[in-house]
Amino acid sequence: MELPKATNTSALSGAGVMRLFNKVGETVNKITYKMDESDPWFEEKTQQIENLDTQLRKLHSSVETLVMHRKDLAILTAAFAKSAAMLSNCEEHTSLSRALSQLAEVEEKVEALHNEQANADFSVLCELLKDYIALIGSIKDVFHERVKVFQNWQHSQQMLNKKREQKAKLELSGKPDKGNQASVEVVEWEAKVERGQEEFDNISKMIKKELERFEVNRVKDFKAVIIQYLENLMTHQQQLIKYWEAFLPEAKAIA
Amino acid sequence: MELPKATNTSALSGAGVMRLFNKVGETVNKITYKMDESDPWFEEKTQQIENLDTQLRKLHSSVETLVMHRKDLAILTAAFAKSAAMLSNCEEHTSLSRALSQLAEVEEKVEALHNEQANADFSVLCELLKDYIALIGSIKDVFHERVKVFQNWQHSQQMLNKKREQKAKLELSGKPDKGNQASVEVVEWEAKVERGQEEFDNISKMIKKELERFEVNRVKDFKAVIIQYLENLMTHQQQLIKYWEAFLPEAKAIA
Repeated sequence: MELPKATNTSALSGAGVMRLFNKVGETVNKITYKMDESDPWFEEKTQQIENLDTQLRKLHSSVETLVMHRKDLAILTAAFAKSAAMLSNCEEHTSLSRALSQLAEVEEKVEALHNEQANADFSVLCELLKDYIALIGSIKDVFHERVKVFQNWQHSQQMLNKKREQKAKLELSGKPDKGNQASVEVVEWEAKVERGQEEFDNISKMIKKELERFEVNRVKDFKAVIIQYLENLMTHQQQLIKYWEAFLPEAKAIA
Repeated sequence: MELPKATNTSALSGAGVMRLFNKVGETVNKITYKMDESDPWFEEKTQQIENLDTQLRKLHSSVETLVMHRKDLAILTAAFAKSAAMLSNCEEHTSLSRALSQLAEVEEKVEALHNEQANADFSVLCELLKDYIALIGSIKDVFHERVKVFQNWQHSQQMLNKKREQKAKLELSGKPDKGNQASVEVVEWEAKVERGQEEFDNISKMIKKELERFEVNRVKDFKAVIIQYLENLMTHQQQLIKYWEAFLPEAKAIA
């Protein structure tokens, strides 16, 4: 079964966040780096994002199944309409035959409504969830990127320590030429450590800022989508009632 | 999946007809007898009953599939409710978490409603159709029974003709003793022919009378069931709207 393409993806406030994160995360190697997290904010957020990922995936698959099921319901309703129409054709009793034929027409309208609702649920709920699963994927990527930056910094720190030891040994053993060379390297690695720490601080700060924005947009998006989902449902239910209400006098007119 | 037992079967006006027909049809041999139908009413009714049988069977299977599908929809709705509840549990944002938890509660109510409607459709529509398919089976049985009675009568007529020929031959050949014996047999077969014709006229008349009653009850039953089906649908749709309406302010309160 072909599901319609969602049209409201670009309207998501979260999409901007995703684009930014995608740029940062482009070169991210997916191997999991371990680091001793010193920032409780990141520890908490990482866990939270993991949970959100798991639950959104479950909800997405549940909604997708519901959408497919509603599509099937539309097909079955069409079959019911056809059966009622055929029964109407072979029905000798005039007003019963007319009522059955009108029941068939109403069921055809109900079929269209089931399809509409399946499409609406898909383009509203499914697409939101799909987009947020992708966004969360990007967030997990930048978390990995931050770990990589951290390890780069730690590597520079280790190298600096080694160079300092070498320099101290050379100075003690009275090799001033080599000592000078070592001094240059120490200065180089000091700069790398400084740059590494800066990079790590920057990416940590940027992630915090972007995640705050993400949280605000996420609540806004979910609120809008839940309301739109409800309003669609209610519109469809009300239309269904109108169809049945219009048909009821026909059923009562069977005589 | 277990479907509920219907409770309104005995309330069908057609049930009385079925019991009568069942008594008549008890000894019916299912082999199709052919007869040259001299009564256009029976010719027409036989065709009509065949068509009705075919179409009611199709409608029954279509409604049964719809009922099973609605049961599945209830199960999927429960899964959706569970996913929403789990997402609510891991949601940090207070009012979004509360709205998701209430969405889960509403979806649980919707699940119950889908089950109710599936049960109602089953016990109202499916059972009516099943009963009428059985009734039509009984009608087809009495049609066969009538053909059997007809052939019994025709057999007696043929025997009577043979006995009359024998009697004439014996009288011509001057065997009065055997002629007397043949006369007795002719009288016997004349009585059997008379009884055969009476039986055939009686069963034909009874079928016409019962079928007229069946037609009246059929229209009455279908009218009642279509109206009940509609009213159930409308009640359920209205309940759905009430659920969504009650939830809408919660969704709008997400802040």
